[in-house]
Amino acid sequence: MKTKKVAIVGASGYSGEELVKLLLHHPHAELVAVTSRANAGQTLAQIFPKFASHPKSKTLRFTDPNAKVLAKQADIVFLALPHGVAAEFAVPLLAAGCTVIDLSADFRLRSAATYKEFYAHDHPAPELLAKAVYGLPEFYRDEIRKTQLIASPGCYPTSILLPLIPLLKAGLIKPDGIIADSMSGVSGAGRKAEVDYLFCECNESVRAYGVPKPGHLSEIGEQLSLAAGTKVVIQFTPHLIPVNRGILTTLYLAPTKHFTTAAEATALAEKISACYAKAYAAEPFVRLLGGKALPDTKNVTGTNVCEIAWRLDPRTGRLIVISAEDNLVKGASGQAVQSLNIHCGWPETAGLL
Amino acid sequence: MKTKKVAIVGASGYSGEELVKLLLHHPHAELVAVTSRANAGQTLAQIFPKFASHPKSKTLRFTDPNAKVLAKQADIVFLALPHGVAAEFAVPLLAAGCTVIDLSADFRLRSAATYKEFYAHDHPAPELLAKAVYGLPEFYRDEIRKTQLIASPGCYPTSILLPLIPLLKAGLIKPDGIIADSMSGVSGAGRKAEVDYLFCECNESVRAYGVPKPGHLSEIGEQLSLAAGTKVVIQFTPHLIPVNRGILTTLYLAPTKHFTTAAEATALAEKISACYAKAYAAEPFVRLLGGKALPDTKNVTGTNVCEIAWRLDPRTGRLIVISAEDNLVKGASGQAVQSLNIHCGWPETAGLL
Amino acid sequence: MKTKKVAIVGASGYSGEELVKLLLHHPHAELVAVTSRANAGQTLAQIFPKFASHPKSKTLRFTDPNAKVLAKQADIVFLALPHGVAAEFAVPLLAAGCTVIDLSADFRLRSAATYKEFYAHDHPAPELLAKAVYGLPEFYRDEIRKTQLIASPGCYPTSILLPLIPLLKAGLIKPDGIIADSMSGVSGAGRKAEVDYLFCECNESVRAYGVPKPGHLSEIGEQLSLAAGTKVVIQFTPHLIPVNRGILTTLYLAPTKHFTTAAEATALAEKISACYAKAYAAEPFVRLLGGKALPDTKNVTGTNVCEIAWRLDPRTGRLIVISAEDNLVKGASGQAVQSLNIHCGWPETAGLL
Amino acid sequence: MKTKKVAIVGASGYSGEELVKLLLHHPHAELVAVTSRANAGQTLAQIFPKFASHPKSKTLRFTDPNAKVLAKQADIVFLALPHGVAAEFAVPLLAAGCTVIDLSADFRLRSAATYKEFYAHDHPAPELLAKAVYGLPEFYRDEIRKTQLIASPGCYPTSILLPLIPLLKAGLIKPDGIIADSMSGVSGAGRKAEVDYLFCECNESVRAYGVPKPGHLSEIGEQLSLAAGTKVVIQFTPHLIPVNRGILTTLYLAPTKHFTTAAEATALAEKISACYAKAYAAEPFVRLLGGKALPDTKNVTGTNVCEIAWRLDPRTGRLIVISAEDNLVKGASGQAVQSLNIHCGWPETAGLL
Repeated sequence: MKTKKVAIVGASGYSGEELVKLLLHHPHAELVAVTSRANAGQTLAQIFPKFASHPKSKTLRFTDPNAKVLAKQADIVFLALPHGVAAEFAVPLLAAGCTVIDLSADFRLRSAATYKEFYAHDHPAPELLAKAVYGLPEFYRDEIRKTQLIASPGCYPTSILLPLIPLLKAGLIKPDGIIADSMSGVSGAGRKAEVDYLFCECNESVRAYGVPKPGHLSEIGEQLSLAAGTKVVIQFTPHLIPVNRGILTTLYLAPTKHFTTAAEATALAEKISACYAKAYAAEPFVRLLGGKALPDTKNVTGTNVCEIAWRLDPRTGRLIVISAEDNLVKGASGQAVQSLNIHCGWPETAGLL
Repeated sequence: MKTKKVAIVGASGYSGEELVKLLLHHPHAELVAVTSRANAGQTLAQIFPKFASHPKSKTLRFTDPNAKVLAKQADIVFLALPHGVAAEFAVPLLAAGCTVIDLSADFRLRSAATYKEFYAHDHPAPELLAKAVYGLPEFYRDEIRKTQLIASPGCYPTSILLPLIPLLKAGLIKPDGIIADSMSGVSGAGRKAEVDYLFCECNESVRAYGVPKPGHLSEIGEQLSLAAGTKVVIQFTPHLIPVNRGILTTLYLAPTKHFTTAAEATALAEKISACYAKAYAAEPFVRLLGGKALPDTKNVTGTNVCEIAWRLDPRTGRLIVISAEDNLVKGASGQAVQSLNIHCGWPETAGLL
Repeated sequence: MKTKKVAIVGASGYSGEELVKLLLHHPHAELVAVTSRANAGQTLAQIFPKFASHPKSKTLRFTDPNAKVLAKQADIVFLALPHGVAAEFAVPLLAAGCTVIDLSADFRLRSAATYKEFYAHDHPAPELLAKAVYGLPEFYRDEIRKTQLIASPGCYPTSILLPLIPLLKAGLIKPDGIIADSMSGVSGAGRKAEVDYLFCECNESVRAYGVPKPGHLSEIGEQLSLAAGTKVVIQFTPHLIPVNRGILTTLYLAPTKHFTTAAEATALAEKISACYAKAYAAEPFVRLLGGKALPDTKNVTGTNVCEIAWRLDPRTGRLIVISAEDNLVKGASGQAVQSLNIHCGWPETAGLL
Repeated sequence: MKTKKVAIVGASGYSGEELVKLLLHHPHAELVAVTSRANAGQTLAQIFPKFASHPKSKTLRFTDPNAKVLAKQADIVFLALPHGVAAEFAVPLLAAGCTVIDLSADFRLRSAATYKEFYAHDHPAPELLAKAVYGLPEFYRDEIRKTQLIASPGCYPTSILLPLIPLLKAGLIKPDGIIADSMSGVSGAGRKAEVDYLFCECNESVRAYGVPKPGHLSEIGEQLSLAAGTKVVIQFTPHLIPVNRGILTTLYLAPTKHFTTAAEATALAEKISACYAKAYAAEPFVRLLGGKALPDTKNVTGTNVCEIAWRLDPRTGRLIVISAEDNLVKGASGQAVQSLNIHCGWPETAGLL
């Protein structure tokens, strides 16, 4: 299989570091550049002793990010940058012919108007929005193969969209009234020197944030609306919990079909089961839990897997779906590598098992 | 103020230990007996080195639990026993004239039928259900003063009822469709030697449990129904998170009055604000958060306080209310001592500040 | 008992916050001022919701630190400032007649030369070093009563000095070759926005730091030398572990008397036991563990107690002593309040039980 | 390369589970049997949802352990059993011609007398002690290749022996007076339902245990004595800290050569540096840290790497060496797979990168 040269812009944050780890061990990708303003000149081994056993860690040095230079070095460039900064690099890299896999929120929306509503400023490169593909492989595999610009989904969105899209597409749940209650590990906040994310501020603590209009809402809403074929307004509450990695999302849903008798419940359960099996039985990175098992973030930490389980509640008439993922892997860097594999025609699981 | 003699049956679990701590330092209660089958004969200091600096820890020894003996020693007996076991002790203690403050679920329901539905066996002492008072001081203060049997509320129920009862009583929210999403620290599972609660099974892990019909549902439903004046069927999902102590509950509610314009939202917000202020402004152990603050379990750990904050979401038309408490204090032992204070005519905050 | 007015300079760090907590509930001290450049103008309740249930939290506002103003407001001023900054405030406050209790390292050394050796610059107020008293109540009680300037000990030093001083004074251990291996919770690093102390950098991590010449060495060495009557050079290695609070110190010591037979070991054990009992049996905040118990930080968290246990090892001829304390209480703010109590002639345990 | 069939006896504990993970993904080993009395009949996927994405997890079922059956199924059998139980299985498996890689302490000592001294009963199969090879690949590579019985080292011993053996062999440190102070994550205690290892007993807690004569001492002492050519009596104190995985060991050592001048220190440092480089520069799983870096367990978690750094302390004349490893990987299952690779003539890093 033909090897491709890849680069990471913003390689010293948590998702950048996870990308480094995945790409150092990738069988077909060759990591040729890592950038970080703060660490320019240092080797990978100096900044991340954990990579020091890899031969490349002694020679690969962080550089200042420079689109022109990167475009000469790499075929494919990952952008692991803060929202708003990624677009600046995407434009010249695309112009120079690189494929760009962007882990920020900059190209996840199709609508520049929605972008402005939620981010309070004009989109810096609105002409690219139509070209960008939402990098959720389970639903955009073909588009990922063909596009030059992949907007890799956010961590919370992934944990919400994977359980919901099949149900909405099949018309099994009502598109309105959806509630997503999520808990995330602290790495989701990034490697930023802020008091709020100090060990002593997070340990022995649980808190909600962004209530009632947290980030990621527009991205989730747009994708759900596309799946439902109608505008979906979701209630989403993120919580910060004291784990390094992992997102657990509990979804409260209203089935389109009422179920009051046991027979109705059984019939509905079979439909849901079939719907999920059809969507995910052949997917390498979605794990449908059977029996009494419920998702647990510790079972997906360090993997690119999203676990899903569901229960019907005859008392309330609701369907409850729960998902678990590693926010840095399936929620960020692993999913980006999954898109890389698809885009390059490599086995989709390359470097991810 | 007249001192009372108090005893704790089941003093070696987490809520029993917390009761010991509170009662050793209580200005008006004298701790005269602590029972524990496993530790009988040992002093408090031997089992709990943390209490060893207290003079009484060297002389007070755990005994085998014996209702007759306890009835002679103590005026008031706390039962910190597993559900189902507490009733056995309550009957003879009440007959002997003791006041009983029960921290188990045995006497929290008014209806023996509901008890049977949820616990799958007949209630062991149904004649006591009518006498028992639900020990939520903010709403049953007078009854707590007069009763001989206080059924101290569960940890999850407290975190759900305190935010909901005022809204339901004021008719500000619809009684149906309520969703409570809770996260609890591991001490809620008790000091039980089970693999599921080992450090390595809980650390770096988040998981839901009991979906869709967890324990505590009947207790919550009954109290909400009493407040609403109509049957309330609640959706409640507990999650286990890696902290020792603390429960955070996020509630998704539908206001009775729609709000679509800014003026409507402001009017509704004022009503909610007034409703909570009326209910809790004078309460020593409910803290209404103003401004941008949201509840955080670390701000209530080790205290008898329940924090509450709320937000209206004009996008979805919902009211979101969030509460935080220490599951072992306001959710168990602190609240039981609060009831003790009320029952004995002591200042309600005695030993709790 | 006569109340005193107290102020805290630097009240928004972890030890400042702990001082606020202790002094808000102190029976004889009245907290009249809290300073914090970053939070000036805000009330205690706004910055620390956890204190919002205290009536004073709504009226007491953070101010910019100003020695002149503070000197008019308070009889006694606590300095919870970074090392090097405290001296600037101490000089004018002392001149204005205040008593100063300094939690920084600025006045802990008697020798300006040692200060310069370890801190690499001249001491800013060397004339005060002779006046300052090392605020370790168990050994400087009389001096604390009389002085105007109390240099409250560091967290690591307290955990090392309390176990060692009695043994050195009694000549039971050799003054050379002492090794102290300590583990500290992350609050010891302060509430500083640094990447090293982010949740994800500390959780699931253990590391040594400052090897082989960490901070606090000079302070420990000077106090041990005073106790031994000869210069003591100690080996001390601090480690950072993922807990909020707590220091555990394991000490490796050589008894002056060899013990090879069982009888010799018994005789030595009796001497050590008697030595510790003489030093600490009447001390309210040192807990000697008997039987098989070993110190555990969770048994001292939130208290002003230092736990101590020891074992003789006949295989190696060593004495191993282990101590545990809460670094923010006995290791910082609790100990400072203990000194306050002594200095003011109040019961030594006032506000600390 | 020829594939071998491997089995794991005791596959449901923490090191058993880690072995399953490593062997499921091993390129040359085929996992044919996993035993567990408690889980017999269940598939891997049912007991460990985290393995459910692996095709074999649906078909491979836990069985009751039976040496005869295992001997027919597997070429090589791993024993991940409690100490004392492993020997029972080793005897018949060896007799049947299997290679046995034992992760327990049963065959780690060469001397049956030492075994009896430390374990207080006769060794169950003393005739095998002479045949067993201590499975520390860095020092017993040739023997591992040839033996039928590999006694894989303990987690603490590995973290102590890797830093010490080269120094002792080179005569750079004195063999007496060695102190090893270790901190371990809770998985080291195994997946046992004991109150001491509950989340709430370990979280926010640090404690020493086994003082002054913990387990593993005999194993460490024997190996150090072999390296030094003289009897080595070590002081070793293990501590339990709230992490899942990881051991950090800090060693206090006396160089044989005094160093008082800067030139002497430099000369000694060069010797130590050369000694470690000679021992480990070519080793894939020992990482010598240079510059200012110190070991951190988070940099080795999930890997088979042991990190080592050292410092000379001119103040005390000591050499301090610090090591970090994952107790379940290099300290247990990873090291056992490393031995498997060597024994089978596969690349030593197969399945471990």
